[in-house]
Amino acid sequence: MTTLSSTERSTIRRGAARAVTDTEALHELLDASLLLHLGFVSDGAPVVLPTCFARVGERLYLHGSTGAASLRRAAERVEVCATVTVLDGIVYARSVFHHSANYRSAVIHGVASQLSDPEAKLTALHAVTEHLAPGSWEHTRLPSKQELAKTAVLALPLAEAAVKIRTGGPVDDETDIEADHSWAGVLPVHSRWGNPIPSPDLATPRAVPEHISRRRFAG
Amino acid sequence: MTTLSSTERSTIRRGAARAVTDTEALHELLDASLLLHLGFVSDGAPVVLPTCFARVGERLYLHGSTGAASLRRAAERVEVCATVTVLDGIVYARSVFHHSANYRSAVIHGVASQLSDPEAKLTALHAVTEHLAPGSWEHTRLPSKQELAKTAVLALPLAEAAVKIRTGGPVDDETDIEADHSWAGVLPVHSRWGNPIPSPDLATPRAVPEHISRRRFAG
Repeated sequence: MTTLSSTERSTIRRGAARAVTDTEALHELLDASLLLHLGFVSDGAPVVLPTCFARVGERLYLHGSTGAASLRRAAERVEVCATVTVLDGIVYARSVFHHSANYRSAVIHGVASQLSDPEAKLTALHAVTEHLAPGSWEHTRLPSKQELAKTAVLALPLAEAAVKIRTGGPVDDETDIEADHSWAGVLPVHSRWGNPIPSPDLATPRAVPEHISRRRFAG
Repeated sequence: MTTLSSTERSTIRRGAARAVTDTEALHELLDASLLLHLGFVSDGAPVVLPTCFARVGERLYLHGSTGAASLRRAAERVEVCATVTVLDGIVYARSVFHHSANYRSAVIHGVASQLSDPEAKLTALHAVTEHLAPGSWEHTRLPSKQELAKTAVLALPLAEAAVKIRTGGPVDDETDIEADHSWAGVLPVHSRWGNPIPSPDLATPRAVPEHISRRRFAG
């Protein structure tokens, strides 16, 4: 088990019992999440935008159009914060005060760098595509030189990260547990894939390929 | 239909066709989301943390412990950014380049203010509780004075907000559509509630109340 960094700002203070310090938990959470929220500072004010990404080893690849303000700003070697959260359930306590949520979150601080080498960009895009749509790299047309030039890819190291996980039932006051005045427990939340919807402009009818029809939710 | 503000930073530039400018869409999205990502600037660097919230009219209430760094910082009358994103599906195009995601996102910029009046705090907590766990205000013990004092509630006006929605199938190049080399379409993502898990410390066995067992996902 590798241990996550613990700089001043990535040390979890609230609910320290929920802090998780192994990189495996970080990797698992990132691999199970389809989008992250990227924070950066623009004109002194915070901006938070959703972004697609993938993890490869100890770095995240973020991807978007070269025209996207968020990626342009994040590419200026400024501090960013990338946060991933999965909601796992609502915790119903016997008191309003102890109501809570079960969740897993990762907060990553760092400076992102833009990839310029076409080979490196292609490798990163492969990772992002396979994270968002596993199998698509093999089954669809690969990026042309022009398309690659229009795509911005940023790399963010996972060196400074904090993971927080809450699991289990409510933590109620003894007096409320004894009073036994209401049900208590957890209502889990799950994500699932719906039925694939074919594009109306398919030239010929075509079965949904297995890499799509058999897709399962990770994590 | 009321129109959302369009300040410099809340005017959507990328994919302007996807920008939505009515407040009803903003309200619907916020009401359908169980958490938001709150961004603030700390020591010059961005920080993004997940938070529970509720919308009441034209304001958001954010809630947490008075010990939480995020709420303490956000209460200092500084600029924050609150972002809500719902992923609706993965868009499988005929080319890697046109792969995309269907989603709804709202980005709210503003200055939050901390509620100090106990009455106002209680009203806001009622909203947050009913958003996270509808029915709990009626069925569980309400906050004591001490609990209320330990709870921080921030109000953030919805005055400056941008909503972006992508729906529908892939937008592929004509040559790829004609080449007809692969399936194209959308794989929808849904959230659903699992089976309620009773707390192991329930004093007596008790049926899951209807406000929990019959809960349905909005949006």
